Amino acid sequence: MAAARGVRVLLFGPAGELGDPVDGVTVVDAPRSVAKDADPARAVRANPDSSVVRAVRAVAAGEADAFVSGGSTGAALAAGLFNVKRMRGVHRPALAVPVPVPGHPVTFLDVGANVEVRPEHLVQFAFMGAALAGVVLGVETPRVGLLSNGEEATKGTPLVQEVHALLAAAPGLNWVGNVEGTDLTSGKADVIVTDGFTGNVALKALEGASQATLGAVRTAATSSVRAKLGGLLLKPALRGFRDEVDPENAGGAYLLGLRSLGVVPHGRFTRYGFSQAILLAARGVTGDVVGRTHSALDAAGALRGGPHASDPSPSVA
Amino acid sequence: MAAARGVRVLLFGPAGELGDPVDGVTVVDAPRSVAKDADPARAVRANPDSSVVRAVRAVAAGEADAFVSGGSTGAALAAGLFNVKRMRGVHRPALAVPVPVPGHPVTFLDVGANVEVRPEHLVQFAFMGAALAGVVLGVETPRVGLLSNGEEATKGTPLVQEVHALLAAAPGLNWVGNVEGTDLTSGKADVIVTDGFTGNVALKALEGASQATLGAVRTAATSSVRAKLGGLLLKPALRGFRDEVDPENAGGAYLLGLRSLGVVPHGRFTRYGFSQAILLAARGVTGDVVGRTHSALDAAGALRGGPHASDPSPSVA
Repeated sequence: MAAARGVRVLLFGPAGELGDPVDGVTVVDAPRSVAKDADPARAVRANPDSSVVRAVRAVAAGEADAFVSGGSTGAALAAGLFNVKRMRGVHRPALAVPVPVPGHPVTFLDVGANVEVRPEHLVQFAFMGAALAGVVLGVETPRVGLLSNGEEATKGTPLVQEVHALLAAAPGLNWVGNVEGTDLTSGKADVIVTDGFTGNVALKALEGASQATLGAVRTAATSSVRAKLGGLLLKPALRGFRDEVDPENAGGAYLLGLRSLGVVPHGRFTRYGFSQAILLAARGVTGDVVGRTHSALDAAGALRGGPHASDPSPSVA
Repeated sequence: MAAARGVRVLLFGPAGELGDPVDGVTVVDAPRSVAKDADPARAVRANPDSSVVRAVRAVAAGEADAFVSGGSTGAALAAGLFNVKRMRGVHRPALAVPVPVPGHPVTFLDVGANVEVRPEHLVQFAFMGAALAGVVLGVETPRVGLLSNGEEATKGTPLVQEVHALLAAAPGLNWVGNVEGTDLTSGKADVIVTDGFTGNVALKALEGASQATLGAVRTAATSSVRAKLGGLLLKPALRGFRDEVDPENAGGAYLLGLRSLGVVPHGRFTRYGFSQAILLAARGVTGDVVGRTHSALDAAGALRGGPHASDPSPSVA
């Protein structure tokens, strides 16, 4: 599906199971998967021949411009950190998604790359999110909020309170303060920042609620002859909205902060969602999301000073 | 509204602003509000005449059976801890809500009482949630899950991983393992446990998404003559569902773990939602939620051993 839309695809996996040859798709036989492991960094080191490591190494070697990994997020992140490396001055890569809500687009990060974070990581995520919203969505001075359990500066964990103070004092950020879970759909901010644990839970809660609500509307529309007729008449008007909130259409999350772009689709995507992930990666390459995000971070003074130092033990999810 | 349904209400607030006398409602003039403060415990200590403290003290004195507080959750919790005291053997009170999703009821806690928790708190919340689901929803052996960013035992923060191990080894719990944000609406568990920060964010994300989705359906149903007719025909079938997902109908969260029952409605509820909160409190008293939860905790061996020790600095949200 992605190749039919002009993307050249290198497909790493067990060649015997990948079906007939397709124009634009080069199959690279990589029959080994990375083993499930509590420590993805260890798993990646122990499986240098796994499909995810080989795909990421192809990007590092310049054979591909971006990678898409539908397996373990932690493994993709670890493979990326070891082989593609971080952008100069970036503390930690983060997973950023457009929140699948009708109407106002919100850029939400981190949704799962960093279960544990330090304050300086969240501060940089705020700038990364703002840069991404500017580059991808064309929002000129995106409003940035910090996810908490209340609007007041005193709400949240000690970490959130510390980040609140840092962001409130940060120059060059259109800071709107703390936002709440409801603001993921309220349009109060263009960028919402949180750690990878809270972000992952909130994103999935939101997607689940949205799909459950649509499911209930569908059920209601079969409950009587009258309702069936109503549902039939309403259906065309709902189609655009259904597409808008379907996570598969968004293609997944940008893995941002490496020297090349990564895209992480949901593990539960169908083949359609994976094709959208490949197209998202291709659009990100064409739009130079990595280069322009880096320039924006640099312009905002949000890059870590000094030479690129290696972080010996990144925490991955 | 609540008094009309047979609840005797003591209403603490500025008598001059509370309108005309109503049968069944006794107004107690308490014109002072508790001051907003980063430290709710301090604010409560400094405002012994505030409406929330006076209402809670009326419960402690046996003048009322339960309290409803629509102000700061932290202030209600602090006032409750100081005056009503904790149930014997309970580490920390928690806020528990029925997740407003169609169909399968899920008991979700903590949704905001404890921003910071220790492993033993979350373990006890699991038993408290199970007891509540048994008492209120009549679920016999409720399935209990721990909210995380993935199903595997190795997912989540170190705290979540530790709690996972403790719950997996806990006797007397129908433990289903880690659950994800999507499982708040999937029906995979009857009780979902998390800390008060994550729970607050996830609940609000879910409510926001559900309302935004319904709003988009409403908008779609005005987009053309055909869609308008469809919406009109579908409307009666959607009414029950709309009521089911409207947080105001649920009346808010039980504050559970004190010697008397508390109910905390959302700050943004209308007068209707507050009347539902009062009715929820009254139903909880009639059903002896506090006593039966305590018995269930005791039977499960989930109460803290030894005499009731005071926890000098409870963390409140």
